[in-house]
Amino acid sequence: MKKILIALLTALPFVTSAQSSQDEKGVSEIFSEELKHGQSFEMLTDLCTKIGPRLSGSPGAAAAVEWSRHLMEKYGFDSVWTQAIMVPHWVRGQKEIGHIISSKKMGTVNLSICSLGGSVGTGPSGVSASLVEVRSFEELKRLGTKTVQGKIVFFNRPMDPTLTNTFAAYGGAVNQRGSGAVEAAKLGAVAVIVRSMGLNQEDYPHTGALHYEENVPMIPAVAISTQQAELLSRLLKDEKELNIYLETHCEILADAPSYNVVGQLNGGEYKDEIIDVGGHLDSWDLAQGAHDDGAGCVQAIEVLRLYKELGIKPKRTLRAVMFMNEENGLRGGLKYAELAKSNNEKHIAAIEADRGGFTPKGFTMSASQQQKDKIKGWKPILESYGLTDFEQGGGGADIGPMEKLGTALIGYLPDAHRYFDYHHTPVDTIDKVSKRELEMGAAAMTALVFLLDRNGLK
Amino acid sequence: MKKILIALLTALPFVTSAQSSQDEKGVSEIFSEELKHGQSFEMLTDLCTKIGPRLSGSPGAAAAVEWSRHLMEKYGFDSVWTQAIMVPHWVRGQKEIGHIISSKKMGTVNLSICSLGGSVGTGPSGVSASLVEVRSFEELKRLGTKTVQGKIVFFNRPMDPTLTNTFAAYGGAVNQRGSGAVEAAKLGAVAVIVRSMGLNQEDYPHTGALHYEENVPMIPAVAISTQQAELLSRLLKDEKELNIYLETHCEILADAPSYNVVGQLNGGEYKDEIIDVGGHLDSWDLAQGAHDDGAGCVQAIEVLRLYKELGIKPKRTLRAVMFMNEENGLRGGLKYAELAKSNNEKHIAAIEADRGGFTPKGFTMSASQQQKDKIKGWKPILESYGLTDFEQGGGGADIGPMEKLGTALIGYLPDAHRYFDYHHTPVDTIDKVSKRELEMGAAAMTALVFLLDRNGLK
Repeated sequence: MKKILIALLTALPFVTSAQSSQDEKGVSEIFSEELKHGQSFEMLTDLCTKIGPRLSGSPGAAAAVEWSRHLMEKYGFDSVWTQAIMVPHWVRGQKEIGHIISSKKMGTVNLSICSLGGSVGTGPSGVSASLVEVRSFEELKRLGTKTVQGKIVFFNRPMDPTLTNTFAAYGGAVNQRGSGAVEAAKLGAVAVIVRSMGLNQEDYPHTGALHYEENVPMIPAVAISTQQAELLSRLLKDEKELNIYLETHCEILADAPSYNVVGQLNGGEYKDEIIDVGGHLDSWDLAQGAHDDGAGCVQAIEVLRLYKELGIKPKRTLRAVMFMNEENGLRGGLKYAELAKSNNEKHIAAIEADRGGFTPKGFTMSASQQQKDKIKGWKPILESYGLTDFEQGGGGADIGPMEKLGTALIGYLPDAHRYFDYHHTPVDTIDKVSKRELEMGAAAMTALVFLLDRNGLK
Repeated sequence: MKKILIALLTALPFVTSAQSSQDEKGVSEIFSEELKHGQSFEMLTDLCTKIGPRLSGSPGAAAAVEWSRHLMEKYGFDSVWTQAIMVPHWVRGQKEIGHIISSKKMGTVNLSICSLGGSVGTGPSGVSASLVEVRSFEELKRLGTKTVQGKIVFFNRPMDPTLTNTFAAYGGAVNQRGSGAVEAAKLGAVAVIVRSMGLNQEDYPHTGALHYEENVPMIPAVAISTQQAELLSRLLKDEKELNIYLETHCEILADAPSYNVVGQLNGGEYKDEIIDVGGHLDSWDLAQGAHDDGAGCVQAIEVLRLYKELGIKPKRTLRAVMFMNEENGLRGGLKYAELAKSNNEKHIAAIEADRGGFTPKGFTMSASQQQKDKIKGWKPILESYGLTDFEQGGGGADIGPMEKLGTALIGYLPDAHRYFDYHHTPVDTIDKVSKRELEMGAAAMTALVFLLDRNGLK
């Protein structure tokens, strides 16, 4: 027994080091191949320019489903299929109209606004009312029905630029967009205007989802550009009665059919263990969705394509998942987890990329300590590619529902200083994507899948 | 004695920790102030749009000298002065003409070229000759005079995209631009065409400096876009005799007067110890020089401005240095070190920012081990701002001559995946700069100066 133990202990470092050297070699080949002959940028260019906006239920979304299905078939993945879902179907209708009816200082001013996703419209007669500015729900509640009744509430708390993590800055402001309409309606407001979720002074608004609550009136909600949010705030300092006209034509239609799209490479030795890598295929209707989240989709497809191109036979089963409806419903993510459960599938890890196609910094994790430690153990292999941050929590919205299945959830973590310059806006276009940064991200994700596939998570 | 030692040992951690907590607080305030009220982006917008290109000896360079002098005076630095130098004066003249005289496949093709900085021109009669493609000086030498005599040599070794450090990829290709003309002329070539130093397929050429050698004929040299470098190479596979016409009107004029510009905040306790922070004010004539190196200049000015804005009294003397003529002569850097020496100044550390205004990653260092260790000791304070890389060597071209004075040389190290998309080209413009990334860099540099100033380098 002792002899065996000694033999094992002697052999172990050798095995580990040989294995680790193969891991290193594989990761190096993945980065080289992607940086030399990567196809992620070409894919993303196609998705952005040939299809463009693809909000759930739209013709663009349907085209993106077909596009990704054909693409994964063309690359010769072992199987490619769709998962049928019903998605919320919201349409913006004709362009929004908004103006200051009259300001003592400025006269009539056209407003750079857009409806928030999921909002009801004002219809052709519009809404006219005076404006009440608040920075928080607490401030709103203090004002109470007496002040808010019949008004348009203007939520103007900026994202905090001093937070170096831009997602934290977003998290600190986005409840105004998500719940502003509900909170204002509870006090009798007739509409809301929300400062766009962006850090810069910009002349375009950022859309994004809101939600309504049962038994609270559904009032129209629009985003306004950060520049004009500043303007309104300045004007309100001098003119207590600033009257605004809003006219929006958006509509909530009946749920529409749509699909997740899944491509698979069959595993060998441990084929029952599935590793998912995905992004969301839908985008906002105003955006090409280059960073949000075309980047994540093409990077996920690229992971499997690189496996094929490099002739790596996966031990485990690998799936590239194009989730539908992350932006305004999460129906795709919910369906994917539901099917995984009902099919008794064993998903050991799921990676989501939904923070833009920027330079890789690391991965976030929502997993057991033992799983996290195993992944952090690969840091020496990954850090020379800039992957140094493995400390943040979280996975991704679409893979979130898989937590219940015991799946380790992992988020691709790129540098995100530029993300909220483009997020949910018409400037989220392919020219904002650096080919090399996108490729570095695709290679980083492939490298992690490669290490997960070779070493498992036990 | 023992008692004193124990007292010291007991006191030490307290002192260190109080000091370190003040360091942390100061760094945090610096980042907050810059991200909230930074002026670096506004400065850079002015420099790029109101002045633009500023090659040494040009009216733009003279305007940039005045602009930076006035700016630092306006900010109320304790003193602002210029250092007179004579700089190389090269002018491009009218736009270059280049075409394939006739290709069997393509007929006449206009070439996307530009003269390399410092090149002689062909003059109005141009140069016509057939093309010889090589990938290295070794290959050129193997071909020898017999093949090269009377030809245009086409240097077409790409930057290696598989190197994750883009500066290493640049370093592996740039000798073609710097020395290609000399090596080809030694074998009787009449001109050279050099593949642009860029990683992407682009339709614009990248300029940059070449040098000539005594007793070797000075032959005209141009850069060609990466796209057309690929085209020429493809055509040469089928057509051995590809004749090219080049016409360039650049000229080397007599040296011209110019200046470094220096702004200073006087130190207190250790006022004789100087800390420099700088960038180079000159740019190539085709570029706004937003990333190269307007970014470094405004970040250096911002360091001192933040000191004043936050009311921090420096212990040591701080200087923002706008070096002139980094691109094609380094006269500014040489003069600065020469004056530092002749004035018996003690420069303890010099920081140069010349790798673009991108997200901070860390600092490079060329210093004694003890100095490096001291700086690395601040990593716990800096790493939460993304400053994690303190392992690479090097400082910067302009501060290089100060090495002889025993100055610790430090380079600001940002993420540089996009740098060579813009470097030395007409697309190095202000719209390629993220306000927030620039500010993160300015704050990172200020934070390092703050730590150096408070703690010294002993």
